[in-house]
Amino acid sequence: MPPLRTALLQSSGRPGSVAGNLKVLDEAAARAADAGAGLLVCPEMFLTGYALGDQVPRLAESADGPGAAAVAEIAVRHGLAVLYGYPERDSASGSGTGHDGGRDGERDGGRIYNAAQLIGPDGARLANYRKTHLFGDFERAWFTPGERPVVQAELAGLRIGIMICYDVEFPENVRSHALAGTDLLLVPTAQMHPFQFVPESVVPVRAFENQMYVAYVNRTGQEGEFEFVGLSCLAGPDGAARARAGRSEELVFGEVDGELLSASRAANPYLRDRHPGLYTPLVRADRS
Amino acid sequence: MPPLRTALLQSSGRPGSVAGNLKVLDEAAARAADAGAGLLVCPEMFLTGYALGDQVPRLAESADGPGAAAVAEIAVRHGLAVLYGYPERDSASGSGTGHDGGRDGERDGGRIYNAAQLIGPDGARLANYRKTHLFGDFERAWFTPGERPVVQAELAGLRIGIMICYDVEFPENVRSHALAGTDLLLVPTAQMHPFQFVPESVVPVRAFENQMYVAYVNRTGQEGEFEFVGLSCLAGPDGAARARAGRSEELVFGEVDGELLSASRAANPYLRDRHPGLYTPLVRADRS
Repeated sequence: MPPLRTALLQSSGRPGSVAGNLKVLDEAAARAADAGAGLLVCPEMFLTGYALGDQVPRLAESADGPGAAAVAEIAVRHGLAVLYGYPERDSASGSGTGHDGGRDGERDGGRIYNAAQLIGPDGARLANYRKTHLFGDFERAWFTPGERPVVQAELAGLRIGIMICYDVEFPENVRSHALAGTDLLLVPTAQMHPFQFVPESVVPVRAFENQMYVAYVNRTGQEGEFEFVGLSCLAGPDGAARARAGRSEELVFGEVDGELLSASRAANPYLRDRHPGLYTPLVRADRS
Repeated sequence: MPPLRTALLQSSGRPGSVAGNLKVLDEAAARAADAGAGLLVCPEMFLTGYALGDQVPRLAESADGPGAAAVAEIAVRHGLAVLYGYPERDSASGSGTGHDGGRDGERDGGRIYNAAQLIGPDGARLANYRKTHLFGDFERAWFTPGERPVVQAELAGLRIGIMICYDVEFPENVRSHALAGTDLLLVPTAQMHPFQFVPESVVPVRAFENQMYVAYVNRTGQEGEFEFVGLSCLAGPDGAARARAGRSEELVFGEVDGELLSASRAANPYLRDRHPGLYTPLVRADRS
C-alpha cells in the first residue's frame, strides 16, 4: 500500500456554531484533498466547540445524528476519511441514568459522552470512540466516561485507533492499542496551557515506545476560560515529528508509511520483549 | 527534609579492571561529597565494565562480595550513598541451573544477573536489583533475567527505586514503581548509538507521566563493539532535566526535592485518574 497522506486540522473553536465548524471542515477537506490527503483529523469536540458550558445537552447528538450526516457528506464530496470530535448522546441509555447524579435533570435524553467518530471516504461510519479518561471539572460535570478502551477501524491498509486528549497521557491506554495492532492512533485533543510538554514530548515518546504513528490534533487559542496551545503533530515510530504545527490555525500534512513502520518494529521489538507476568500491579484496583 | 543533592557519574568503561573502576569511583565520591551530594549514581556494570565478553563468569560476584565491600568502604569514607552496577553471581542457585542451557558449563557457580546495588553512607547494603528486561545478544547470552520488578529502599526521606537501562523503556516498569510510591528512580544504563532518543525524550517523559524523579546514568564512548552515547540526566516530575551531561566523562549534579514532588503530584494526579479495570490487556501473556 502507498503511504497514507494525513492532514491535521489545528483549529480555533466556534463554540455553539455547528454550521460554522462544518464550514471550516468543508474548506479544510477541500484543501486536504487537493494536497492528496486520504484522511483529515480534527480536534476534540470539533463539531460543536469545546467551551460549551451548559449548552452540552442541547448540542449533544447520537453517533448517527445530523452532525454525522453533514460530516459524511463532506467526506464523500472530497473523497477522504474524516475523524471529528463531538458530544455524543446515547439515547439508548434512557432518562435519569447519567454518571453524575446532580446533572441527571439536564441529561434527560440519556448519557452524554465526549466522543470522536471516524467517517470513511464513502461516508460510512467506521468507528466511534468515547473518551475513557475525562479531564477537569467541565468534562466530569457533563460527560460519562467511556468503557471501551480500544476502538479500531481499517483504512488504506492500516489499522486505525482512536483516543481523546487526556487518554494518551496514560501509557497504559496506548500500550493496549499497540497490543491490538494499531498502526496509526488518532488523538483529537483540547490541550491547554501549561501542558505543552504533552504535544512536545509525551506524544513522540508514545509513538516510539509503542512503534506506531500518533496523530495528535489540537485546538488553539483562547476559548471561554481555556487557552489551547496548538502544537499538533504527527509522530512516527522513531519518535520524530512528521508534521508539527505552531500556535496558529493551520492545516499540516504528514505521511503514514506502513513499510517504514514494519522496518521500525523489527528494529525496536518492544512488544516482543515485554514480560506481562511482571506487570500485574498495573491492573490492581486498590489505588483507584 | 532538605533536597537530596544527587551526583551522576557518567563514565567510560575500564572493562575487566575492577581496581581501575573503583579508583574512578573513589575520586568521583570525593568530588561529589565536596559538592554536598548525598547520593552518587554510577552506570550499568560500572564495577567491571560492560563489554566483558567471556570474562562475565570470572568477574561476577555475590551481592556481598569483595566489590560490594570496596564500594561500601568508599561510601563510608566520603559519607554518601552509592548506586553501582555489577554482574551478580547467585551462588545459592547452584550448579547447572543457568538460564541459557548452552552456557551452563561456564556458569557452574550459579546463575548470573545484570544487577545494581545501593550502598548507604554507613556502608549498609540497602537494596539489590536484578535487571528484568535484558537487551541484545550479549546480555541474553550471559545473564538470567531478574524476577522482581520493584526493588526499593529509603534514603534521606525519599523512597528510592532501582531499574537498569532497557527496563526504563517499558512504561509498565516505571508505572509499577510509581504505584509503589517511588520518589526517585535510579537507572544505571549502558545506552548505545543510535538510541539517543531514550535519554533525550523517553526518560523525561517517564518522570512526568509518573510524577517522580528519574536519574539515568550512562556510560560514554567506545567500549569493545559498543558505542555508548552519554547524555545522562536527572529528570524532574515536570519533565525538565535538572542535570544533563553531554558526551564526555562528567560528574553532574541535581537536586531531588520532596516538597516540589508533592506539589507536582497534586497538580498532575495521573495515579488518581487511572482506570485499572481498563488495562487488563497489558498483563495477558498471549503475545510474549
